[in-house]
Amino acid sequence: MIEKQESQSSIEHRGSVDRCSIQQTLDIVGDRWLLLILRDIFRGVRRFSQLQENLGIAKNLLTSRLNKLVHVNILEKIPYQTAPVRYEYTLTEKGRDLSPSLVALMKWGDRWCSDDAPPTVLIHSECGTPLEQTTRCPSCEENIYPSEIRSRPGPGQAKFDNLKEVNNR
Amino acid sequence: MIEKQESQSSIEHRGSVDRCSIQQTLDIVGDRWLLLILRDIFRGVRRFSQLQENLGIAKNLLTSRLNKLVHVNILEKIPYQTAPVRYEYTLTEKGRDLSPSLVALMKWGDRWCSDDAPPTVLIHSECGTPLEQTTRCPSCEENIYPSEIRSRPGPGQAKFDNLKEVNNR
Repeated sequence: MIEKQESQSSIEHRGSVDRCSIQQTLDIVGDRWLLLILRDIFRGVRRFSQLQENLGIAKNLLTSRLNKLVHVNILEKIPYQTAPVRYEYTLTEKGRDLSPSLVALMKWGDRWCSDDAPPTVLIHSECGTPLEQTTRCPSCEENIYPSEIRSRPGPGQAKFDNLKEVNNR
Repeated sequence: MIEKQESQSSIEHRGSVDRCSIQQTLDIVGDRWLLLILRDIFRGVRRFSQLQENLGIAKNLLTSRLNKLVHVNILEKIPYQTAPVRYEYTLTEKGRDLSPSLVALMKWGDRWCSDDAPPTVLIHSECGTPLEQTTRCPSCEENIYPSEIRSRPGPGQAKFDNLKEVNNR
């Protein structure tokens, strides 16, 4: 995915670490088990017993993580039978929006852990073509290398500046 | 980033969990601290003391994680002074290739944790335009929604099938 080897500083350091969206995301899903549970649910596994079997995770650990994912509105818990009551888990919009993160982690594993022989290829449902994930400049209409990425304070930083003096220049 | 609400099964379940690239990636970088260290190094922070100050992480935890990242060839440790010897950490090609994963995690946090007011905006170094991350079909030349993603066994799965009978159909 990266063909150019340049500066390390592809994302310039700016602003307060506390206000970083990466950190906020990892505070919610920065746990290996949570991400593996989500991977399985993206792949159509929805029931506790199937998740447990696929992942080989202890029941109490799976329960606590599913509860967390429901609590933060990434999953919905929906009853599929009543006697006894049993639930399945489906992704909310917030959960589905983690798709690009899982795709990116998978692409990295494909390249660096699989000897250039990916175990699974993601394809377009309509035509079967293997998919690409790109970081693009919509103005130049070009794909961007990591070395061409910079950052500037966004509206959330401006809000934060009103609350606290931040030396970010 | 997602405008369409459809099937949960955006990535169909296929093949052995053991052979999944997401799991292989998380086995290496599926740790909140590792990803935050990498985020800082992408932003140009290279020295132990700066990383420790930015992250507020205990020295022994930072040492063990930096050693791991060097061991797996995501970071290089380069001396920048000799008396006493001091090192800085830079990304290898394998490390730089984690950029799309960090961009994806950041975009999710921008959308879901920042009230639509991102603290930081990633821009193209050449023109200053905010960047987009997309999953694209190179054949249809279209951006793809998570619900349009399917999967098929790749060459790594075929290799694995020769070693072990896998019920993946």
